[in-house]
Amino acid sequence: MGDIETPILLTSTTSVPRVADALISYMLALPGNEDVLSINPVVGETNDGYLSDIRGRHITPEDVFSAIKNAKSGAVEEGAVGAGTGTVVFGWKGGIGTASRHLPAKLGGYTVGVLVQTNFGGVLTIAGAPVGQELGQYYLREELQQAGEVKDRGKGSVMIVVATDAPMEARNLKRLAARAWLGVARTGSSASNGSGDYAIAFSTAPQVRIRSEDKAPTRHIEVLTNDTMSPLFLAAIEATEEAVYNSMFRAETMTAHGHTVQALPIEKTSEILRKYGAIK
Amino acid sequence: MGDIETPILLTSTTSVPRVADALISYMLALPGNEDVLSINPVVGETNDGYLSDIRGRHITPEDVFSAIKNAKSGAVEEGAVGAGTGTVVFGWKGGIGTASRHLPAKLGGYTVGVLVQTNFGGVLTIAGAPVGQELGQYYLREELQQAGEVKDRGKGSVMIVVATDAPMEARNLKRLAARAWLGVARTGSSASNGSGDYAIAFSTAPQVRIRSEDKAPTRHIEVLTNDTMSPLFLAAIEATEEAVYNSMFRAETMTAHGHTVQALPIEKTSEILRKYGAIK
Amino acid sequence: MGDIETPILLTSTTSVPRVADALISYMLALPGNEDVLSINPVVGETNDGYLSDIRGRHITPEDVFSAIKNAKSGAVEEGAVGAGTGTVVFGWKGGIGTASRHLPAKLGGYTVGVLVQTNFGGVLTIAGAPVGQELGQYYLREELQQAGEVKDRGKGSVMIVVATDAPMEARNLKRLAARAWLGVARTGSSASNGSGDYAIAFSTAPQVRIRSEDKAPTRHIEVLTNDTMSPLFLAAIEATEEAVYNSMFRAETMTAHGHTVQALPIEKTSEILRKYGAIK
Amino acid sequence: MGDIETPILLTSTTSVPRVADALISYMLALPGNEDVLSINPVVGETNDGYLSDIRGRHITPEDVFSAIKNAKSGAVEEGAVGAGTGTVVFGWKGGIGTASRHLPAKLGGYTVGVLVQTNFGGVLTIAGAPVGQELGQYYLREELQQAGEVKDRGKGSVMIVVATDAPMEARNLKRLAARAWLGVARTGSSASNGSGDYAIAFSTAPQVRIRSEDKAPTRHIEVLTNDTMSPLFLAAIEATEEAVYNSMFRAETMTAHGHTVQALPIEKTSEILRKYGAIK
Repeated sequence: MGDIETPILLTSTTSVPRVADALISYMLALPGNEDVLSINPVVGETNDGYLSDIRGRHITPEDVFSAIKNAKSGAVEEGAVGAGTGTVVFGWKGGIGTASRHLPAKLGGYTVGVLVQTNFGGVLTIAGAPVGQELGQYYLREELQQAGEVKDRGKGSVMIVVATDAPMEARNLKRLAARAWLGVARTGSSASNGSGDYAIAFSTAPQVRIRSEDKAPTRHIEVLTNDTMSPLFLAAIEATEEAVYNSMFRAETMTAHGHTVQALPIEKTSEILRKYGAIK
Repeated sequence: MGDIETPILLTSTTSVPRVADALISYMLALPGNEDVLSINPVVGETNDGYLSDIRGRHITPEDVFSAIKNAKSGAVEEGAVGAGTGTVVFGWKGGIGTASRHLPAKLGGYTVGVLVQTNFGGVLTIAGAPVGQELGQYYLREELQQAGEVKDRGKGSVMIVVATDAPMEARNLKRLAARAWLGVARTGSSASNGSGDYAIAFSTAPQVRIRSEDKAPTRHIEVLTNDTMSPLFLAAIEATEEAVYNSMFRAETMTAHGHTVQALPIEKTSEILRKYGAIK
Repeated sequence: MGDIETPILLTSTTSVPRVADALISYMLALPGNEDVLSINPVVGETNDGYLSDIRGRHITPEDVFSAIKNAKSGAVEEGAVGAGTGTVVFGWKGGIGTASRHLPAKLGGYTVGVLVQTNFGGVLTIAGAPVGQELGQYYLREELQQAGEVKDRGKGSVMIVVATDAPMEARNLKRLAARAWLGVARTGSSASNGSGDYAIAFSTAPQVRIRSEDKAPTRHIEVLTNDTMSPLFLAAIEATEEAVYNSMFRAETMTAHGHTVQALPIEKTSEILRKYGAIK
Repeated sequence: MGDIETPILLTSTTSVPRVADALISYMLALPGNEDVLSINPVVGETNDGYLSDIRGRHITPEDVFSAIKNAKSGAVEEGAVGAGTGTVVFGWKGGIGTASRHLPAKLGGYTVGVLVQTNFGGVLTIAGAPVGQELGQYYLREELQQAGEVKDRGKGSVMIVVATDAPMEARNLKRLAARAWLGVARTGSSASNGSGDYAIAFSTAPQVRIRSEDKAPTRHIEVLTNDTMSPLFLAAIEATEEAVYNSMFRAETMTAHGHTVQALPIEKTSEILRKYGAIK
């Protein structure tokens, strides 16, 4: 229908229904929503069953309410936080990462921000440098699973949220979201069988805002043309790639649920990046 | 991925998460599933907010467990039962309906069964007879809403489950499910703006069964060719049309949540059907 | 991309490339298009191989240029004309049909027009009356094929063009086009295996016009909200149903390519419509 | 429908209809096809309007017949040949490229081969080395266009054909084709606005062959399970990445249609690859 009715929440695979239910509770209780009889909650997920008691579904409604109420603008917490607490990416500790790109004024001055919840396999490449290969940590998620190190059969994936202040509607937002997958590809994802990779994009531009209180039969909107999309697409690709790296650089080694997953070794990684000219 | 991991449950829109969560609980607790870390629950819905306290989400895990455990073969309960308890269709009481078609032996002897949860607007036509028009009850769901008689803004829809013993895999099952919409069309649905009409189809044929315990890299399966699909498609269309009628003929007038919805008047309807030659 | 670059042309299945090529020639030759290096032609088709030498592909560029140049507003020719010359529907002569619905002023006063190219099987129902059954002409297209009467294996289908002056963009136009299938369903189509049923919708409203000469980065447009869609959807359903009937009522018996296909017998059909109360 | 009826041909955007028409002619003329009344030709394209008189559409039926008749197994011609003759990629001469991966016996021993027709923009990265940046040739295709260097507005794209001998049917072949986009992403594609990137995949395995002469209602087939897909997906990603590079390494500088496009300078590129550790 082209609109999003709720905040976008991220969680663990099996907790999706509980989070969705709490999100419905939250929305129904908002002042002015007393007569609302339908809510389409938006909840994303990845499977954190290696480091988390995923069968236990420990998220409570209070956790959800708290997350929504404490949401704030400014710097975003990254690494092993929130829905990224128990995730594993490229065999190292993953989590939440974020990055953005700001277009120059002559291209509209828009910003594209990306937040990722990383939980997939492959061979890590950072800015082109073969980090995974150099560190001797390269395998398909399936191999981890066969080795008994990851038991969440085929569920490695990434959840991506793309936000922009560029005035875009659903058709071009879908195309923007599709580009995020290219950013993931550049990090070395193998997009394995069970990967439920998913990206959603939305615009915060007032020119395209859908206001439920509006009763007029038409909307007067201002949208970017197709011809202006390419820089925004590139911004989404780049920001997604960087967000994946940030999810790893900000995550720390974690031991939980009887398993330990190492953080990406930053010193060694920096050496590799220098060796391959990715940084100086 | 071409498979369904759980029973298919139907409920009220806002209760989907609670039902999905209970379904996950049920699946995780099954013997042999002790190591399962992911479940994709299948839960359908329509919005019954006119006759039901839909904001209250009164379904409990026990209701779900009970529904699954008491599922049985044989005649299916129809009318205002289960997820159809509070639904409204064409302005009359709707609910659960079911019908099937059995192909002659020379076309394979397969059966296509359809179950619908009816909750939509339009002008009722039964076997071609303009019942809605004759009974003076014809309006778009939106008009009901504007009149304050239905408050579930734009949420009128139908959920359709198509089951067959014909050996078919996901590609042709999707095409089979798509045909169900044609059966709904024949009843007079207006497929209005908010309609989240959804159909899912599955096959019970052992020749295409996906067994999670199978570890072989390939499956030997036997599937019907495209060229054999047409009679099955027609069966799905006809069974869906009839299932919609059955959901009405078996529903009784209901007063709940401060509203009353009349059952389709069977006597008058029969007269109309006779008048228009739909029955003798 | 949300826009259509050329007129929409309809033809016979195997002639699609020739018509598309001539359409490209026409577009490239238009004044102002001297630097154009890409054209996405829109050409629809159904298979008329029973009454036509479809292997011969007799359409010439001049036929295409002539069709475009002679296109005019006003009443549309119907029946066995143009791309409908050789089509067969429900076992009778089909062709081109058109119909429209005009919404009352309080719903916006918009018009939805539909043009169909009918070439499919099923059991004809007209306004609910079982005409096909009464006339003893009911079979799946496949049965015709098995009987050697129709040789275009599995290619029975319908091409539908929906035009409106309502200001709508691609997202809701797709939904409008999808409704056309419901109109076809009401005529008794069996949507058989080989049916490549296709519908395309466009808006002529100046408020949503995409002008290739516009170089501004944004477009200011006025679009109808989702909440206003239902009457337009119903208009598309009804107009499609009526357009299918018109394609038959206006077609005459044809003998060609060694075969004869009878026109729908209008007298008998009228009697049946009266018998079943569809007309008085 | 899950099958492909013709060879897959690649050409220039505006020549698609002429090639498709010749392909139909070829198919209709094959012995045994005397009664065939429908052909669904498969023709891919990219826009080569910078180096080619794309408006002229110079491909003849004889060119098409010759291409089909001279198709042979063995090494594939690469670079500026066939449909790649006039293409431009990352600002250098592109063309046809091909590569493959052979899985180890324990993973089935299957081969995945990829052929690409490269014609898109971005910043070239080869095996992680920032070649485009080092060579000072980095811009969006749009910038080339604005600079008047490329006039095919927004049409930069890539056409990808994935072939495998792994026994897979349409559902998993679609997923395999989707992975090819990840390989393209790794080369630095910006997937710009006008890019009509398209990938098609097919299997040559006799276990899934669809034979039009088969009249049995069911097919007995052997297909790989979902759980075996990941190595094949990775093979498609890697082979696509390498095929893009090969399309450039094998292309030579071309002057045509009043323009010159340089080949990727192999000496300098090799230096860059060494500098960044991509080769030794």
